[in-house]
Order: sequence, then structure tokens, then C-alpha cells
Amino acid sequence: MATSPLKICAFQQAVTTDRDANMAAAVSAAHQAADAGARLLLLQELHAHPYFCQSIDNTHFRLAESIPGPTTETLGAVAKKHEMVIVAPLFEKRPSGIHHNTAVVLDSDGTLAGMYRKMHIPDDPGYYEKYYFTPGDLGFTPIDTAVGRLGVLICWDQWFPEAARLMALAGADILLYPTAIGWHPPDDEAERLRQRDAWVTIQRAHAIANNLPVISCNRTGFEADPSGALPGIEFWGSSFICGPQGEILALAPADKEAVLLADVDLARSREVRLQWPFFRDRRVDTYGDLGRLGRD
Amino acid sequence: MATSPLKICAFQQAVTTDRDANMAAAVSAAHQAADAGARLLLLQELHAHPYFCQSIDNTHFRLAESIPGPTTETLGAVAKKHEMVIVAPLFEKRPSGIHHNTAVVLDSDGTLAGMYRKMHIPDDPGYYEKYYFTPGDLGFTPIDTAVGRLGVLICWDQWFPEAARLMALAGADILLYPTAIGWHPPDDEAERLRQRDAWVTIQRAHAIANNLPVISCNRTGFEADPSGALPGIEFWGSSFICGPQGEILALAPADKEAVLLADVDLARSREVRLQWPFFRDRRVDTYGDLGRLGRD
Repeated sequence: MATSPLKICAFQQAVTTDRDANMAAAVSAAHQAADAGARLLLLQELHAHPYFCQSIDNTHFRLAESIPGPTTETLGAVAKKHEMVIVAPLFEKRPSGIHHNTAVVLDSDGTLAGMYRKMHIPDDPGYYEKYYFTPGDLGFTPIDTAVGRLGVLICWDQWFPEAARLMALAGADILLYPTAIGWHPPDDEAERLRQRDAWVTIQRAHAIANNLPVISCNRTGFEADPSGALPGIEFWGSSFICGPQGEILALAPADKEAVLLADVDLARSREVRLQWPFFRDRRVDTYGDLGRLGRD
Repeated sequence: MATSPLKICAFQQAVTTDRDANMAAAVSAAHQAADAGARLLLLQELHAHPYFCQSIDNTHFRLAESIPGPTTETLGAVAKKHEMVIVAPLFEKRPSGIHHNTAVVLDSDGTLAGMYRKMHIPDDPGYYEKYYFTPGDLGFTPIDTAVGRLGVLICWDQWFPEAARLMALAGADILLYPTAIGWHPPDDEAERLRQRDAWVTIQRAHAIANNLPVISCNRTGFEADPSGALPGIEFWGSSFICGPQGEILALAPADKEAVLLADVDLARSREVRLQWPFFRDRRVDTYGDLGRLGRD
């Protein structure tokens, strides 16, 4: 368990089609975060690539990599150099030939502490993830590291209170959400604000319901749909870090890259959990229908 | 199912020890809401009484009533007169001699459509509810009325995403939270704001996660602890109504009574549920541990 407070960092990135340049920017952000004292760095979903799920195109499978592989090698070395835990989302190719939307967790000694495979897979216009990613098979299992037990989830998972709760019940110290979400260019300003506010609100609510800090790292910048069929995505940035009452500790802008830093106090989580002891009162005798798609 | 939009109302009340005066104020608010076109009225938790759970005192059990009883009689007549659905929280005494923190739902013809018995019972300094209330035995069962299927929950339930989800899975059209929550006078301004913001945020998140409107009705005003042991509670009001993206439609002040009105559009909920189809992607194959107190 880390000493408190723990400085943590999200790197909100605008990416290009140049994988090496995207990775170099992430490494540079890691140096900057380490210089500032950060001991945990979260990168955004599929951080080394454009959000290729905007179109259905089997050439994109070439972007996938193995674990261990180039990302664990490059960022493992960075983690070790700075004695920093790095959570790096990537496009995973398994030996069996199936693919996942995965985040690897590199411990502060550079070793692979574990990984999380995205459990909830979206499929909407411009977010054709069910085509690319097999739903995760590792469950909601937090990963032990030098800075604590990390409840890593990915993007669409953030809309599911079940995911956050299961990580918390398994002892997570922090919830982490690498994300790629943005605006549909034709949407008007009111709809844009409702969507982004909903996205912030529900993640803050996971902090509140589970008495845990949350760090959410989203990409920024406009990415065109390479197929030309859709108008592209304006990723809305707005990465943030909040404390265990959902209080915002740091917030990035919508439209700029950011090395976002905040101190989280894990002792504070334990205080809050005593002050508002929700977990004491869960009615586990009556939650069976959560395991069904509906009771309608 | 109601036509859309549906005008709904929360009556945020400051109560005294005079039960008849508290009830008369609620009846007056019902008239006012009906005149404004409301077809659903939500009263606050234990609306006819001071929040007696501030102290442990067995004389308070005298405040309990049967169902049917005085509240269903008085408010049933009001519901029928105005063809309005009224959700009225009360202190329930069962024939067996046990007690619940309950809300009755009076349909627009004045009949008892159903009731909800609070499932999650808090117990904290000034909120000694485990002394008074047996945890509910009716589960998370929404109640069919002339204006739709109502997912009635009560106060502490609002911190449990499980409760909102179960109501939504069972087909609720609206989530309703009668509440009695306030500030501990010694707490500083920053802590007060964090607490109230957490309370708003988590309820808005239930709207977002479940693509449903939420109406939350809290009491207002200061109530002393009759035992003198504690410094009393400054109920923070701030009742609100939000839409299925968590967008605030109406918000009451902290420190004044309010007949809070808003139009909710149930057709909009269905649109939002198609736009962000969370329910499609729930991993019910992996949620088993939600039925456990922990995996730690």
C-alpha cells in the first residue's frame, strides 16, 4: 500500500496515425509526470493509435499486439526507470487469434503486474467495438501494485455501476477509466453538454458509491473517420481526478493535451467509508436479479 | 402509461411537531401542484413528522400508523379529487408490531396502488434508523399507476446503484427518492458542499445509468435533537428533478419550502436508451459477486 498522499497522473493525448510518435509522446508525458512526483500514470484507451473503431475494416487488426510485446517492453522500461506504475491501454492480440480492448498494468519495477480486458463492449455508429473486441474474460479483478490495488476499467465500463462496485468489493483502492469518447459533430451544444456532463457525473458517482478516488483519462482532438462514412469524432478531453466523495481534484480542458496531476489520499477513503458506511447496509439477500437482463 | 410530457411535483417541506399542520401543508401543496397541472406528487421521507430518528426514544413509536390508515385516507381523497398520483412516505406499523420506513402510492382514483418499504437502513449519529425500522421485505418492486410504473426508493437507498438498477430492470419509468438528509452543524462549508454535491451527483447518476428521470424530494429547515445530545440537523433541501441524461430540469433552494415542478418526457427516456444502450451490454454472466458483501 502506498503512503498518502499519492500523486497520480492522467495523460490526455491527441494522437495521429504515427504509432511511434504517439508512444514517444506518452513516454515524454511519463518523464514529466515523474519529475512532478507522480507514482501512477494512466494513459487513455488504445493510446498509441487513432480510435480505429470508427469504421469496420479488417486491416485495423494489424494494429494489435501481443502481451508481452512492444508496449510492455517500452513502458515497462519507463516504469522501472521512474519507479512509477503505468496503466497502458492497448489493442491486444491473443495467440488464439482473438482480440481484446485491454489495459496492461506495469508495476514500479517494470514487470507486468496484471491486465484488464474490457468487459462491456459498445457498438454504436462510430464505435464499432463489437467487431474488433471479444468481451473480456478476466472479470472485474483489481490488480495489486506498488501504489495499491488498482481497479482498472475501460471506457464503456464507466456507464455500469456494477463494474465499479465489483472492483470495490474486491478491494480496489482507486478506480481507473481510460476512455475514448467524444462528440458527434452534428450534435448541438446543449446535447454535447448533456453528454459530457453525464459522463463526468456517472464516474464521480462511482467514487461516491464506493468511497474511492477515480481517475478518468480521455483522448482529445478531432479524428476523422478514415472510411469517410461518418463525420468523425471530436474527443472531448475533460479528463479528471476526483476524491472519494466525488469531489473534483483536477480537471483537464476539452481541447488540449494535458499532463493532469493530483494528490489522492487513500487514508481519506477509509475515513469517508466510515462516515457514510454504505457497504455495511447492502441488501445482498435481495440483489439476485442484477444477474438478469431484466424483470420486465 | 401517461402521455408525455408528464408534469411532476416534489413538495419540499419544513415540518413542525404538529402532525396535522404538516399534513395540511402537504394537502395544500397538492392543491397547488394540481392547479399547475401536475399529475404526480412526491412528498419527502416521513413527511408528516419531524425526523424523529435523531434520537433513540421508544415514545416515537406512537407516531407510527397502519396501512390503510390516516395517511392513505387523507391523501387518497386528495389524489382522487385531483386525479393525481401521490407518493406519501410514512412511519408504518404492521399488525405484527414491527415498523418500517414506508412510502404509499395513491393512484389517481384514490386507491392504494402499492407501497415500498425502505430496503437499505442507515444507522449513524443522528440517523438511528436501525432502531426504528425493520429493513423492507417487499424488494425493489416498482408500482404501476395511472402515470406509469414508479420506482419508489427512500433516502439511504439513493447511495446504492443496485436499488436503482433493480427498479429499472423491473421496468420503472421514473425513479423517486423521498429523503431526509442534512448538514451536521459543526461541519465546515467545504464539507457541506461536498456532501450535498455527492447526494445530487449520485442520484443524477442513477438517471444516467438507467436512462430514466429522477425526482428527489428532501426536507428543509433546522430540526433540533429533542434529546439534546446532538446539535440537530440542517436539512439541505435542494430537491430536484432531472431527465434521463441526468440533466437538471428543476432545482429547489436549500433553505426554503418549495412546490417544485417540471415536465418529464417518458418518450425521451426511450430515445436515450436507444442512443446509449447500456442495458444491451450488461455482463450478467459476471455479476454474481454483487450478491456478496465483499471479495476481499
